[in-house]
Amino acid sequence: MRPPADRARSERQRRLADLEAALAGVLPAGALLLADEALVPYECDGLTAYRQRPLAVAIPEDEAQVGELLRICHRLGVPIVPRGAGTGLSGGALPHPQGLSLSLAKLDRILSIDAAAGTATVEAGVRNLAVSEAAAAHGFFYAPDPSSQIACTLGGNVAENSGGVHCLKYGLTLHNVLRVRGFTASGEPVEFGGLGLDAAGLDLLALVVGSEGMLAVITEVTVKLVPLPPLARCVIASFTDVATAGGAVAAIVAAGLVPAGLELMDRRMTAAAEAFVHAGYDLQAAAILLCECDGLPPEVDEQIERVRAVLAARGATRIEVSRDEAERLRFWSGRKNAFPAAGGISPDYLCMDSTIPRRCLAEMLVLIEAMERKFALECVNVFHAGDGNLHPLILFDAADPEQLRRAEAFGAEILETSVRLGGTISGEHGIGVEKLNSMCVQFSAAERAQFALVKEAFDPQQRLNPGKVIPTLARCAEYGRLHVHRGQLPHADLPRF
Amino acid sequence: MRPPADRARSERQRRLADLEAALAGVLPAGALLLADEALVPYECDGLTAYRQRPLAVAIPEDEAQVGELLRICHRLGVPIVPRGAGTGLSGGALPHPQGLSLSLAKLDRILSIDAAAGTATVEAGVRNLAVSEAAAAHGFFYAPDPSSQIACTLGGNVAENSGGVHCLKYGLTLHNVLRVRGFTASGEPVEFGGLGLDAAGLDLLALVVGSEGMLAVITEVTVKLVPLPPLARCVIASFTDVATAGGAVAAIVAAGLVPAGLELMDRRMTAAAEAFVHAGYDLQAAAILLCECDGLPPEVDEQIERVRAVLAARGATRIEVSRDEAERLRFWSGRKNAFPAAGGISPDYLCMDSTIPRRCLAEMLVLIEAMERKFALECVNVFHAGDGNLHPLILFDAADPEQLRRAEAFGAEILETSVRLGGTISGEHGIGVEKLNSMCVQFSAAERAQFALVKEAFDPQQRLNPGKVIPTLARCAEYGRLHVHRGQLPHADLPRF
Repeated sequence: MRPPADRARSERQRRLADLEAALAGVLPAGALLLADEALVPYECDGLTAYRQRPLAVAIPEDEAQVGELLRICHRLGVPIVPRGAGTGLSGGALPHPQGLSLSLAKLDRILSIDAAAGTATVEAGVRNLAVSEAAAAHGFFYAPDPSSQIACTLGGNVAENSGGVHCLKYGLTLHNVLRVRGFTASGEPVEFGGLGLDAAGLDLLALVVGSEGMLAVITEVTVKLVPLPPLARCVIASFTDVATAGGAVAAIVAAGLVPAGLELMDRRMTAAAEAFVHAGYDLQAAAILLCECDGLPPEVDEQIERVRAVLAARGATRIEVSRDEAERLRFWSGRKNAFPAAGGISPDYLCMDSTIPRRCLAEMLVLIEAMERKFALECVNVFHAGDGNLHPLILFDAADPEQLRRAEAFGAEILETSVRLGGTISGEHGIGVEKLNSMCVQFSAAERAQFALVKEAFDPQQRLNPGKVIPTLARCAEYGRLHVHRGQLPHADLPRF
Repeated sequence: MRPPADRARSERQRRLADLEAALAGVLPAGALLLADEALVPYECDGLTAYRQRPLAVAIPEDEAQVGELLRICHRLGVPIVPRGAGTGLSGGALPHPQGLSLSLAKLDRILSIDAAAGTATVEAGVRNLAVSEAAAAHGFFYAPDPSSQIACTLGGNVAENSGGVHCLKYGLTLHNVLRVRGFTASGEPVEFGGLGLDAAGLDLLALVVGSEGMLAVITEVTVKLVPLPPLARCVIASFTDVATAGGAVAAIVAAGLVPAGLELMDRRMTAAAEAFVHAGYDLQAAAILLCECDGLPPEVDEQIERVRAVLAARGATRIEVSRDEAERLRFWSGRKNAFPAAGGISPDYLCMDSTIPRRCLAEMLVLIEAMERKFALECVNVFHAGDGNLHPLILFDAADPEQLRRAEAFGAEILETSVRLGGTISGEHGIGVEKLNSMCVQFSAAERAQFALVKEAFDPQQRLNPGKVIPTLARCAEYGRLHVHRGQLPHADLPRF
């Protein structure tokens, strides 16, 4: 009898051979990656602490190939993990060991920009920034702007319901997508939503947005375009303590102002960003706020004056307003580079993503300080403060498994504290595999069962991105017992097939 | 053997007695209506052409009573039809002959207005306008404003994903609701969404919004409030033909303007409205546009100038701008009273509600004219033109069954033409029973099957508002064969229980 490792290897070889034979003629040459070395770049997404070699990677070039491939995999029982640019931060595109990673990167055509309708229709692999670039000629832009917008794809944005600094005013992906086309798990073509504001029947479009590739594979997206504001100006305000800065955020919103962006960075984040890009930030401040107003010039000027008045009344010690576009871009440069800047001060970081009521911002910052001592790790903070969305960056060294364990426990405590404060475990990065345990904390057993039933209504055989987002009953029971995140790979949750 | 009518009567008596006994002690005195004469006001909603006596009507006073009642009805197998103010226009609240109509009208408390968070939390029976009235003291309003806003409830708005003239800028109910609380079909308490922009997991909130009481019973709603604009001004423009007016609508949007409202009325609608309220409309125009801009005063002035320039360039023969608030309200008075005005020129009317791409507005108006000849009925047109949402009002006399039949066939043809032009059969009024047949036209069998599977994931026993929204396979097969709307009551679709 052969040893188990050999048996697994030959089982894998058999599956590979079946898949290769079935897909011959469907995909163009070079579009099916099977060799180990070719699979390495696909082992993880932006959540690099989790890695898994897929069975294979397919890179189809059009919708027809995607449909055919899905029908074949459905017949063979091969799990599918859809993938955009691989910039996701919660492991939504982490491969399945017996599954096909389905890259939509080559579906990268901008199909139409309709200025009269204020819409763009693009394939799923089109990059977020490319949509705004194409729309600019018509006087429009696509509002959701994740930090990764130069690389991330619209399909990935739909999967994760991505946000960005402009969400406070313009909404998340959900609020800017009108229609998607794609396929069900069995390869049946579907279309959700429509060109109007509302679509008839149950809102399956909204259900699919943010479903992390678990309900359907999206090949085409129609988005709403927003008129390019003729002017944008940015205010930077300094505060001597974070609680006062948090209070100023709430006061701006309560004054009826809707800034195009309202961001908070604490002292250490500011220092890291300043060292990285020299944005001219106030290094003495305990926290700085960035507040942008956009629109027609007279509107912007009036808003800026009102923002300035609220900030002054709420204890800002220094207020600067951008005088021209170059200065505005300089103000933002540090914030936009916060993540790489954090990479500059630590070998690795875990980017958390939870949401809390705005009034709890200051309380949360104090609690995070206590966690830094408890887990003996540093954390720098950058928040989409206007919508209460936190991005604490936990600094650690992944070469030390003990540090990774502590970083994950730290992250879990931030998420659970967010839930306790009335917030949620995900602001814009999704659940993926990263937050499976935290789902047990956020939702009741009845609510999780409802998620599972909806998943089953789309994908009864659990073939689309299985094991993500919805934790099993057993997992939650165990997590409840241990209540310690153990950094284990998530595949304990994978259904057998 | 007793005749069938007798058997049915005694079966009904038995059901009523069971229900009355089970609910004794749960509901306060007078909160369960059983007598025929008490049930008459509940026989229909705003779609008065369909009427059905319910088994009984319950009017609970708080969330706890709703939950208890649902658990009891679940045990007894009694269908539930949730009901708000009964102003819905597609028959979503049409009673079920063996079901309990569950009125949420007495859950009418405004629970909190949180100015710092920019949110309001209200019970499901709170009237739409009451939310804006309560928020005004804090400088906010609730944006979705259906014509029925003085009467319709937030719960009903959530069920139908209601819109209004402000949707172009501020979105539908879906875009303004953050969280709902309520119960599943079996009486299990649930909460969907959260206070942040995004909520973790599948977006069941978005799925429940617009689900017409088929997935859950909603008892509490948290909505986003919008800062009250300091100023709003309205432009009225006249056009000598509807095609030019339609073109001007598309040109305004393509110019990057986002008016707070952009409405089109044709000559006969204008005449009816003018006779009803004396708004000072141009009775010579083939069509008029109403375009409102709101915001800070300098912004409004600049926008109004840009709107005026586009209208002039696109063939407006007369342009008036409101000089003060009284004039602005007068400009809107005719549009806001369009539906009662139509009631003034015809014994009955059928208010259609479909959406088409903006560029097809003129084409659609010409097609509707041809349908008027085909069905020998008049139609007056009032459109949320900015978002391509049509409200043709088909005038008829319900006392003549032949006219009702023609009016329904006329309506079905408008819906199917909308689908053919790339639009959808529902803009903001929902499907209810009115558009069941048209669902067969809009959606493929696979898409309808997906709707049914999602419904089953929430309500496997089909107890919540059964027979609405999702047509049966048999119904669509028959509709495909006949393709004639026969005005039949929808209960052929009701599941047996």
